[in-house]
Amino acid sequence: MAMDGYRGFLTLLVAALLFGVLSVIFTIVWVLHYRGGLAWDGGSLEFNWHPVLVVTGYVFIQGIAITVYRLPWTWKCSKLLMKSIHAGLNAVAATLAIISVVAAFDFHNTLKIPNMYSLHSWVGLAVVILYMLQLLLGFLVFLLPFAPLSLRAFLMPIHVYSGIFIFGTVIATVLMGLTEKLLFSLNNPAYSTLPPEGVFANVLGLLILIFGGLICWIVTRPQWKRPKEPNLTLHQPNGGTPERVEGSMAINFGEMDKSNSELNDETAARKRNVALDEAAQRSTM
Amino acid sequence: MAMDGYRGFLTLLVAALLFGVLSVIFTIVWVLHYRGGLAWDGGSLEFNWHPVLVVTGYVFIQGIAITVYRLPWTWKCSKLLMKSIHAGLNAVAATLAIISVVAAFDFHNTLKIPNMYSLHSWVGLAVVILYMLQLLLGFLVFLLPFAPLSLRAFLMPIHVYSGIFIFGTVIATVLMGLTEKLLFSLNNPAYSTLPPEGVFANVLGLLILIFGGLICWIVTRPQWKRPKEPNLTLHQPNGGTPERVEGSMAINFGEMDKSNSELNDETAARKRNVALDEAAQRSTM
Repeated sequence: MAMDGYRGFLTLLVAALLFGVLSVIFTIVWVLHYRGGLAWDGGSLEFNWHPVLVVTGYVFIQGIAITVYRLPWTWKCSKLLMKSIHAGLNAVAATLAIISVVAAFDFHNTLKIPNMYSLHSWVGLAVVILYMLQLLLGFLVFLLPFAPLSLRAFLMPIHVYSGIFIFGTVIATVLMGLTEKLLFSLNNPAYSTLPPEGVFANVLGLLILIFGGLICWIVTRPQWKRPKEPNLTLHQPNGGTPERVEGSMAINFGEMDKSNSELNDETAARKRNVALDEAAQRSTM
Repeated sequence: MAMDGYRGFLTLLVAALLFGVLSVIFTIVWVLHYRGGLAWDGGSLEFNWHPVLVVTGYVFIQGIAITVYRLPWTWKCSKLLMKSIHAGLNAVAATLAIISVVAAFDFHNTLKIPNMYSLHSWVGLAVVILYMLQLLLGFLVFLLPFAPLSLRAFLMPIHVYSGIFIFGTVIATVLMGLTEKLLFSLNNPAYSTLPPEGVFANVLGLLILIFGGLICWIVTRPQWKRPKEPNLTLHQPNGGTPERVEGSMAINFGEMDKSNSELNDETAARKRNVALDEAAQRSTM
């Protein structure tokens, strides 16, 4: 299926993947080369799993998870398959995020460092809980076939916005965490003398921020939305499956046709724009 | 002019204003009550202007500046007036942001603290420069009457996205700065024992984050966009002014009418959706 501005999409997707993969590589090199490596021993090497799992799962995989509907190569795949991939990638990201929190708590408890006092920890824990709720609500409402269309239509813009807000807040939390870790651990030479590790970790922060900016651009372009499904009530007599959703959209389009003579009227054009936008939102359910 | 979901808009706007005003009040209380007050003496009291000016200007006023087009009470005001208010508020925010950077540098130089080593300073300086470029480009392209319609239409989605991205990045930078300041200055009792100042400043961080989340929700709802101007080529014979822009949009709507019989066709409906969306984007120029 053709996509408007396909070359622009491809360029930005490749750039996002580049910045995302570089973020993961920089994080791994940071903990292996500058922070002593990885282990699950309750000490500082266990803490190092925290940034690795957060950047790999909570930043990179979540970024991919919110982008999958927009890959034009998947537009021939069924909506159910794409929903499963979207939910599955987010579930992987959530699992890695939870293990990363366990690593940080283990490290704190071993070294008798207090937990949950910093703004990083407050925002971080809040966003993990929000992410779990988002995942659960998405599963119940959009993946299981029981929720009525009206509930899906009402919750879809909230689901989309919450997802992007959580993704952005995760990145803000990562930047706070990086700041904390560098101030705590980069002592000899001090962070304030900007040693190679300081430059390296600052660049890592910029890579993550740019990755976030690219992903959010890609997932907010209206022209790159997955197209709505074909009109199933017309083409498929057995339209009683959950795909019936798209059938009812086609009816909406039909109803809007009738009022087309009003299109030169500003208010009607505006209403039409909103209605089409909502329909397009619904098509990404 | 009527707005779809006006009560929802009003509720969220009041909530955003509440969280924004609380953020400013908490910042002022923080520096006055916990951080020794304000002065312009090169010392730590001059530094205290940094958070006050950032949260007042760069967070709160910028948040209002990106929301003004969506206030339905302003929809009867001319587009030029609203552009001037939007540009003026952003110019005030940029001025306060620059003074805030001067305060931080003055403080560092007086106390022989190195400048520009932390991730906070890197992202902060980058976002100040991006904000100035955004302001300059917006002034040249959208406020001055010389830029051709095609350039405005091309740059508008980029201008809108850059604005929201800068706003979000400012908030991430504020959270990093708050983290830094608490780790540097909250020593007796230590931040890790979570004294009242720690709780207070953490709550300030959450208030700012929620303000950002509410503003971004408000400015990304398609149904709350400022409506396009009335069809000036039809209603005003002297349509040779810059408002001619909206005249040419009406022509676009007319052209789309002709292809209306295709509306049941999925591709045509999708194209139409994109075209209407672009038209609506243009209408917020």
